[in-house]
Amino acid sequence: MTHRKNLTIGLFGFGTVGRALFDLIATTKPSGVEIKTICVRSNSKERGVTANFTTNPDDIFNDPDINLIVELIDDAEASLFIIRRALQKGLTAVSGNKKMLAAHLPELIELQTKHNGTLLYDASACGSIPVIRNLEEYYDNDLLISVKGILNGSSNYILTKIFKEGISYDEALRQAQEAGFAESDPSLDVDGWDALSKLVIITVHAFGTYVEPSRIFTFGISNLSNADITFANEKNRRIKLVGHVEKLADGRICMCVVPQLLSQDKYIYGVDDEFNGVVIKGLCYDKQFMFGRGAGGFPTGSAILSDITASQYDYRYEYKKRNSHAGNLPEFTEDVHFRIYYRYVRPQDLNLLEFDSISEKYTSEAYNYVVGITSLRALQAAAPELRKRNVFLAAYPRD
Amino acid sequence: MTHRKNLTIGLFGFGTVGRALFDLIATTKPSGVEIKTICVRSNSKERGVTANFTTNPDDIFNDPDINLIVELIDDAEASLFIIRRALQKGLTAVSGNKKMLAAHLPELIELQTKHNGTLLYDASACGSIPVIRNLEEYYDNDLLISVKGILNGSSNYILTKIFKEGISYDEALRQAQEAGFAESDPSLDVDGWDALSKLVIITVHAFGTYVEPSRIFTFGISNLSNADITFANEKNRRIKLVGHVEKLADGRICMCVVPQLLSQDKYIYGVDDEFNGVVIKGLCYDKQFMFGRGAGGFPTGSAILSDITASQYDYRYEYKKRNSHAGNLPEFTEDVHFRIYYRYVRPQDLNLLEFDSISEKYTSEAYNYVVGITSLRALQAAAPELRKRNVFLAAYPRD
Repeated sequence: MTHRKNLTIGLFGFGTVGRALFDLIATTKPSGVEIKTICVRSNSKERGVTANFTTNPDDIFNDPDINLIVELIDDAEASLFIIRRALQKGLTAVSGNKKMLAAHLPELIELQTKHNGTLLYDASACGSIPVIRNLEEYYDNDLLISVKGILNGSSNYILTKIFKEGISYDEALRQAQEAGFAESDPSLDVDGWDALSKLVIITVHAFGTYVEPSRIFTFGISNLSNADITFANEKNRRIKLVGHVEKLADGRICMCVVPQLLSQDKYIYGVDDEFNGVVIKGLCYDKQFMFGRGAGGFPTGSAILSDITASQYDYRYEYKKRNSHAGNLPEFTEDVHFRIYYRYVRPQDLNLLEFDSISEKYTSEAYNYVVGITSLRALQAAAPELRKRNVFLAAYPRD
Repeated sequence: MTHRKNLTIGLFGFGTVGRALFDLIATTKPSGVEIKTICVRSNSKERGVTANFTTNPDDIFNDPDINLIVELIDDAEASLFIIRRALQKGLTAVSGNKKMLAAHLPELIELQTKHNGTLLYDASACGSIPVIRNLEEYYDNDLLISVKGILNGSSNYILTKIFKEGISYDEALRQAQEAGFAESDPSLDVDGWDALSKLVIITVHAFGTYVEPSRIFTFGISNLSNADITFANEKNRRIKLVGHVEKLADGRICMCVVPQLLSQDKYIYGVDDEFNGVVIKGLCYDKQFMFGRGAGGFPTGSAILSDITASQYDYRYEYKKRNSHAGNLPEFTEDVHFRIYYRYVRPQDLNLLEFDSISEKYTSEAYNYVVGITSLRALQAAAPELRKRNVFLAAYPRD
């Protein structure tokens, strides 16, 4: 049986998650795990901990003792630079930077193969929920139908406030910012970009296929108005921001990040506050649901620590689905049609989006809406315009 | 990167799960997986499938082509015999027999080490929910506080009927039997023995410690009366049968299988029908919840198939917690005190069980109950008598 390898860590970044990881290791003292050097952007801050800080990455990369790179910085470009350098040296690296990963996974997978390095990033999708490792290890491609989930804690916190406390979007956003669940520039969270990065990563491990983020229709909740909230309440539904990948009958996959009008019988209807929840649907096991804290220093720090202890046992993603179906991976498609709710103010904004059919139409002085069938292709074509206008839309599945 | 190994399977057993696995492989055609020979107790039945049946285990064990043993028979003794023989030959074996596993895990772990065989059994605990592999791979001992869950689908189906449809225990049991969710002798399910086996297996992978099933207090729902149902409804709670292992502040672990009066804010309160749900609690990630189908041919068959495809990549349990904490494993303790509801009919049956204190007492002509603090030690001491009498008890945690 294998034994734990000793790990000497070079840590990049000492923000919320970096600090939480540091405290976690100090408190739980996992055997054979030590942070030797911490590389930060500026060494002038008073950090209140005793550790070996540096601003020079070489102090980590040229230290022969250091055998694990943990990268917890915000800047996606700098993050890519660090991870590339680690993998080129054949080191093991742990990263939580979903934006960087979503943009560069194919290159990073190749680098691992070429230099025999290892990259782990379970913390990047849904914080403490072990989604990636479960998809990698457990759910076989052949049986997997879809993965669907609430992948962003901040936007979910806001939507929960709106639908449980009956407050407006602006008020809910303000409360989320006060509670530390939304950034001062919340666009990454509320416009769906963070969920999109996670969906791209999840899809690689669920179906093997990598799809560039820019190809995937993504629409957030920042235009959510009281009219939309009223519509949802009248239909006895709640709006959640959902990332979704599904294998169609023809073997192709569709993906999107879009608000959904969910009825009460859906598992993710009850995923509240800053929590994340993922539903994995398969041919035989029906639906599985995983639920946990998706954001915050300690939940994310503990997911990073799980990656660290996994690497003590030389764990690595095998990219099974990507490798075993190479050359025959599911293709990405936008040819999928479904029902949406589309709310607009200026009458001409109805023409932004091509509908196959419209089944309901409401007009008033203040705003208008339609319910109708459209496609991912039409949505993606209209996306740049939709994001500029005062319109809101949500998938509106039939019960 | 590793490649899929070809597997030629010798299958023991062709009951509900064996048949589901056969159909699953025929339908999904996983690459490199073939069932060569099926060993059954009697070859006289008409099975309606084209396959190579035998009644002689040697036809499997002496076949040099067969490199994977899948054992899906009910009889725990015969199951042990097959798994021992497979492991002694250094083969890989997949088993779903929780009773056998719970009784013999230490021996089977040793056999794996000694002969370099591999035993996988994710299907044995909670069917399609990947609990064992997640505990093994993801949740580090040092951070793990407790695992608690609804581990038996049949008893949960009965309890759901009772609390959602307001029917009696006997009527709910009858409906469960009709729906195929309970055996004609339901004792294994409703008296908690099935959940107990799963709890023992889960604990080995959660904390490394093996505890003999007979040492663990186990009490089921077969004595549940209308009085108990009324009590639960009045307190706005539902009764669920819960398996529970928890690490105490002193590092020891306590375990039990016992009905619980759950308030609505508990994750497992909403796990209904034949579903299973497991809550994993950790120091930093708070609580994680996994939910899925725990019983039935196809969900279990797909869990078996997941073990099979995992073994294509030479996956094996590392028994990390057991090995890395060897000699220093958490000890099992009964020194844990908690509040219970205890209902009895004959006044002298109150004396069966030692209470630290009693906070409520109700007496009537028809029945009596108390609410009070007792210990696992007192419960386990009284268990043989409690099971014989018309009494019911449930953990009654404070809100």
